[in-house]
Amino acid sequence: MLKKFLLAPGPTPVPPEALTAMAMPIIHHRSPDFLPILEEAKNSLKWLFQTENDVLILCSTGTGGMVGSVTNFMSPGDKALVVRGGKFGERWTEICTAYGVEAINIDVEWGYAVKPALIEKALKKDPSIKAVMIQASETSTAVMHDTEAIGKIVKKYPGTLFIVDAITALGVIDLPVDKWGVDVCVTGSQKALMLPPGLAFVSVSEKAWKFNETAKCNKFYFNFKKERANLAKNQTNFTSASSLIVGLNTVLRMMKAEGLENIFKRHARLADATRAAMKALGLKLYAKESPSTALTAVEVPAGIDGGALTKLMRDKYGVTVAGGQAQLKGKIFRIAHLGYFDTFDMIVGVSCVEMALKEMGYTKIKLGKGVAAAEEILMKF
Amino acid sequence: MLKKFLLAPGPTPVPPEALTAMAMPIIHHRSPDFLPILEEAKNSLKWLFQTENDVLILCSTGTGGMVGSVTNFMSPGDKALVVRGGKFGERWTEICTAYGVEAINIDVEWGYAVKPALIEKALKKDPSIKAVMIQASETSTAVMHDTEAIGKIVKKYPGTLFIVDAITALGVIDLPVDKWGVDVCVTGSQKALMLPPGLAFVSVSEKAWKFNETAKCNKFYFNFKKERANLAKNQTNFTSASSLIVGLNTVLRMMKAEGLENIFKRHARLADATRAAMKALGLKLYAKESPSTALTAVEVPAGIDGGALTKLMRDKYGVTVAGGQAQLKGKIFRIAHLGYFDTFDMIVGVSCVEMALKEMGYTKIKLGKGVAAAEEILMKF
Repeated sequence: MLKKFLLAPGPTPVPPEALTAMAMPIIHHRSPDFLPILEEAKNSLKWLFQTENDVLILCSTGTGGMVGSVTNFMSPGDKALVVRGGKFGERWTEICTAYGVEAINIDVEWGYAVKPALIEKALKKDPSIKAVMIQASETSTAVMHDTEAIGKIVKKYPGTLFIVDAITALGVIDLPVDKWGVDVCVTGSQKALMLPPGLAFVSVSEKAWKFNETAKCNKFYFNFKKERANLAKNQTNFTSASSLIVGLNTVLRMMKAEGLENIFKRHARLADATRAAMKALGLKLYAKESPSTALTAVEVPAGIDGGALTKLMRDKYGVTVAGGQAQLKGKIFRIAHLGYFDTFDMIVGVSCVEMALKEMGYTKIKLGKGVAAAEEILMKF
Repeated sequence: MLKKFLLAPGPTPVPPEALTAMAMPIIHHRSPDFLPILEEAKNSLKWLFQTENDVLILCSTGTGGMVGSVTNFMSPGDKALVVRGGKFGERWTEICTAYGVEAINIDVEWGYAVKPALIEKALKKDPSIKAVMIQASETSTAVMHDTEAIGKIVKKYPGTLFIVDAITALGVIDLPVDKWGVDVCVTGSQKALMLPPGLAFVSVSEKAWKFNETAKCNKFYFNFKKERANLAKNQTNFTSASSLIVGLNTVLRMMKAEGLENIFKRHARLADATRAAMKALGLKLYAKESPSTALTAVEVPAGIDGGALTKLMRDKYGVTVAGGQAQLKGKIFRIAHLGYFDTFDMIVGVSCVEMALKEMGYTKIKLGKGVAAAEEILMKF
């Protein structure tokens, strides 16, 4: 018997409350039984997004939400300013390119956050840029860009939308969508929302709806205008992923009971503890600045095989963390703390890193030292 | 307490075996634990589709699969011959239009099946037509088009693909994809596959993959070439809807245990019984020919309000059937028999129709007469 722990940045563990709710008999999405379910989800999502605007519910992964966030507001030939500081920044560029939108890339060294002044400079130089696209939390590098500061800049440009991939940020850090001027904000079900993959959520500002009127990119499955009209009737454009939406209400009720402020505090506490533990073990964080509250990326120490490390953690100890993606493959490991995570999930993660590194012959590790550092922080709440 | 029965043509009831399997802790889609799960699903889908070709697994509703079946094989300006005999035929046209593909529509009177000779004639007249698109079962009218006959015709045209929406046909009737020359075959999770909505499945022939090489329609989320490359590694291009795929293996194991031939026989028996029951009650079937094995569409008798009928069935008796769509709204009701349905589901449906029509003052109804006719057929197996 090996008890398993999922400490990867998505999918994240699903609470038993949601698993059992989703195991109830399926509800027809055009029946009156479903209307109050979608209405509750719709309203709760506004609460989570801190927005007065509609939050669309799509049946896809988060990437589908990103695609729709390009195609519903842009036309071929339009320019988008893309902050490219990791694999998911690259994804914005790829989506733009796939639909004929010209991506102007601000390349940021991986491990660093974009300097908002660079965005201001680019917009000043070319105010015809139709959108600025960033990651609130770049999952591949565990770095957060400054959504608030960038929002303030973009707000000054009436011809420019602020489109934010908040897939590993929403429900993790305070990200008041309306207050910060985020026109289009995307997240997915399998992250802080503690659900299986299958739903994407996108909030759309009134400013963005104006762009929608003239947006000419091809679209059919992700048609936000039609989703909005359906949402007003507590429906979705195509078949609703009804079981997942039942689960969504369960987790949103749990989140409401905890309260946004407490959710953000819990995530910050877990992130602080994890980072302190890694430092106490003599390990280096990959994020050189603005480390993400959603996950911690840790450099694999010299002489250690990163792939073998995560494999040992998983196969011997049952602890699944994420390795590095693209050029970071084998060079970092990533411990998640977004979603259904609490004190002892972090203790498990840190303890497992200690044992696995020790076993792999990394002599600098002192067993228990990371755990002790984490405990120092985890005790305070 | 009101026990509820879902007799609509999707979503359909999910067996408890699948509900509990999906309620197990979530599995990371890039972990080794997931690889055999996807491998099993991949192979079982080939069995279900009766194909040697890859069956792609997408995180979307069936409509997403339809969109990908256009954009991955066609270029703007290409021509597609669309059989338009219901709401879902119209959807093929809408998708083509959204991506700049020219839809040449063969309009078929609702309630009838397309005459395959019309397709032959159209292809002879214009062999530059790149694809023929049909519904194997048009869910809005409960009519089946002759997939086998049309497949034989399209096979003769090396420059034309046969693209079939089998969303309410696959796993219902014998639809041997390879044998019948179906190049692209789409289905969804919430129909005969007895799962919640959230997955689409698309088989792609070698002939179709050749078209894929030059297809220029915009695409990103539904990128079949990338899905194929990932499938070879037992992965999906973006995050896998892992919980649904776990459920998929459960239902596919159930289907394998039953056997394809028995599955088709069961569906045919339920469809026969339902049709016989409706006729015994003096009601008219909406399908004038080739009635679907997936569901039965019944004309609402004159003087009866169709909306009130389905509402009464649902609110008083807990039985959800589907009403009519588009121009058929209020004019028909549709009883499904695809997926997790057996003898007594049909008895419940027929019995409910009897009681509801009687209560609404439809004097021609003789209680029990429809049930008796159904029983005559249901007994024989």
